[in-house]
Amino acid sequence: MAVIASLECSRCHHHVSAETPQTLCPLCAGSLYVRYDMDKLRQTVSRDDIAARAAASPASLGMWRYSSVLPDVTPVTLGEGWTPMLHSKRYPGLYLKEEGANPTGTFKARGLSLAVTMAKHYGLQHLAVPSAGNAAGALAAYAAAADIASHIFMPQDVPFANYLEGILYGADVTMVDGLISDCARMVAENIKAQREANTPAHQVWFDISTLKEPFRVEGKKTMGYELVEQLGWQYPDAVFYPTGGGVGLIGMWKAFEEMEALGWVSGKRPKMYALQASGCAPVAKAFAENKPASEFFQNAATFAAGLRVPKPYGDAIILDIVRQSGGKALAFSDEEILSSILDWAKHEGIFLSPEGAAATAAYDALLATGELKPTDKVVLFNTGAGLKYTDMTAEAMHLKRPNEKKAALPKSMPVGGIITPQ
Amino acid sequence: MAVIASLECSRCHHHVSAETPQTLCPLCAGSLYVRYDMDKLRQTVSRDDIAARAAASPASLGMWRYSSVLPDVTPVTLGEGWTPMLHSKRYPGLYLKEEGANPTGTFKARGLSLAVTMAKHYGLQHLAVPSAGNAAGALAAYAAAADIASHIFMPQDVPFANYLEGILYGADVTMVDGLISDCARMVAENIKAQREANTPAHQVWFDISTLKEPFRVEGKKTMGYELVEQLGWQYPDAVFYPTGGGVGLIGMWKAFEEMEALGWVSGKRPKMYALQASGCAPVAKAFAENKPASEFFQNAATFAAGLRVPKPYGDAIILDIVRQSGGKALAFSDEEILSSILDWAKHEGIFLSPEGAAATAAYDALLATGELKPTDKVVLFNTGAGLKYTDMTAEAMHLKRPNEKKAALPKSMPVGGIITPQ
Repeated sequence: MAVIASLECSRCHHHVSAETPQTLCPLCAGSLYVRYDMDKLRQTVSRDDIAARAAASPASLGMWRYSSVLPDVTPVTLGEGWTPMLHSKRYPGLYLKEEGANPTGTFKARGLSLAVTMAKHYGLQHLAVPSAGNAAGALAAYAAAADIASHIFMPQDVPFANYLEGILYGADVTMVDGLISDCARMVAENIKAQREANTPAHQVWFDISTLKEPFRVEGKKTMGYELVEQLGWQYPDAVFYPTGGGVGLIGMWKAFEEMEALGWVSGKRPKMYALQASGCAPVAKAFAENKPASEFFQNAATFAAGLRVPKPYGDAIILDIVRQSGGKALAFSDEEILSSILDWAKHEGIFLSPEGAAATAAYDALLATGELKPTDKVVLFNTGAGLKYTDMTAEAMHLKRPNEKKAALPKSMPVGGIITPQ
Repeated sequence: MAVIASLECSRCHHHVSAETPQTLCPLCAGSLYVRYDMDKLRQTVSRDDIAARAAASPASLGMWRYSSVLPDVTPVTLGEGWTPMLHSKRYPGLYLKEEGANPTGTFKARGLSLAVTMAKHYGLQHLAVPSAGNAAGALAAYAAAADIASHIFMPQDVPFANYLEGILYGADVTMVDGLISDCARMVAENIKAQREANTPAHQVWFDISTLKEPFRVEGKKTMGYELVEQLGWQYPDAVFYPTGGGVGLIGMWKAFEEMEALGWVSGKRPKMYALQASGCAPVAKAFAENKPASEFFQNAATFAAGLRVPKPYGDAIILDIVRQSGGKALAFSDEEILSSILDWAKHEGIFLSPEGAAATAAYDALLATGELKPTDKVVLFNTGAGLKYTDMTAEAMHLKRPNEKKAALPKSMPVGGIITPQ
């Protein structure tokens, strides 16, 4: 495993030590990235070691197969990562990265596995997070596994599964009549109040928000390593990523940079497409308007709950990556998203999350315009299991459980409907 | 991949050809097992090839890493198998095999991946299944991926997720006011009526029920290969398996037999524990009464939906395996099951299915009596993702989504409850 050399500000490049817990850059409040001694790593680790290690330790290592490029600590793991890369049944160049196979059913598990691992390493006892839903569920699970208290804040209209997760895992759950931005303010205010009340240091909450500490993005970078390894250590032509907070996209870009420094991959990096819902599309709007950062998106509303992030903290980084790569930031309506969910279920046998379906809708749209060809090598991310959105998807479909109905079983059975056997 | 030598009746050992689709033994209606030329396989395949193949084809192979002991056909795959083997945070000898990471969120994916693969190979166009819920969802998904029509019959009070899956994947869904046994009769009656009406052969449904065709058990045997490989090609002391239809347990036993014939594992096989819910415990009852087969369990009722199988078709095989191995068949109440769900969520960070929690409840019970020690090497199967049972688990907990409530945000934030930000 790798020794952390320092934490580097993504904005002003100031370095701070990882010996103690860090949040944002003390100089400019930029997000911090974990840095290792890449020259040393290049000499001591090889990409071939990864498969060999996984073969030698067959109890599923998941994303920890990349421990040689992750901090040198004992993992708090629930089996996250190394998710399936599924080949489309219809398009020869298309792959779907199925992040719904993660613990707690979403890609959030990767970031929170590493962030909670580091929190445990630092001896933190209270972790707090504002969330669109899935980060809250994942924090609650990993905190339970690590025996650390978690305080989660999420919109009250998240999928029911997110609420239940919080309760089951024993988190301190606050359901907020607002959005993740409101939740974030509440976490910050709580911490401020605790400090003002001279709460003992070990009882003050640590804010484990997206990009406000360095390890969630570090965990999510494993998606970048995986997609390249799963394609035989080659880049695809494009990556389609549903973008709420956008940390996955940022993490993958960091992974590409590291892998190139290590000599593990070369060639042209993929075009990065950031996909949003029309009802909450701050990044797509800023991209269209050619602005360097997003503005707060008013009245955010979409059933793709994970995309309801009106102003992502990493917006400038996301926009920079999208533009550098030659990709785009685009938004699709809830109708287009639902239509893509139905299409993928019926024709590929895959139940997408609404967020994932923003990526598949984008793929269809770019195929239609000719910007993409079916043979272009494209990796779409389904960031969560459709099963986690059972209530919201059914509601979007106007589907209800059929009412109980008693009827005699006819001799020749009709198909469909509810029938009482004799 | 392995060439099928024949299909052998598990009861009378009659052999039939796998050239055409088969259901039950034509002589005695016993379940059929797939047989290969094991002497030839022993000479040509090695367990070391498995990890090497997986390393060379890193797009997640899942259970198809064992293709050398599976039929030689092109897989219909959604990324099933090679699920995490999680080490308990509390008991040094305890491992949890997390089958909730499978496509459609349950172990059913393994059997239906292979059964639909073979159905496609045979050119079958209509597949029908009676189900306690999860097999229906999995059939619907794999049939959609294979472009085959599926007809699914399940109790109308299954988890809502199972109903939604059926609809989304485009299956022909019948919700039945009854149990899986009623569903099974309805499938059989449909097929009988189709035959009597001289329906063209390719339009007659093929009954893909548990143990009524040879390939679902063949797919599920991969759980046995995996658990042994993930423990370093060694047997654990005991395997705890939630038993509805019991095919997973039967499949694992077949895997152990094959692995011994191949020289891949040796030593004492694990004690096999079949776990049920008190509200539907036909196998546990037969075990307690020392009977060779079960009786139909009247008024089956439990929130562990997958265990509501009042008379499993493979009951005699299950009981034989449990007894041969020195294991037990036991049942636990819904209260004990719910209590174990809460315990595992809070202390291990894992959201169990109710079926999986029958296994964890059994582990606790046998630890308490001293029949097991915390250092005994035990593998518990969580057969499905807790997230698939969001509605039923919440109902068992008497938990409802908190009502919307408007309130001003106080300056010092209280914890818990619903709060409107300013």
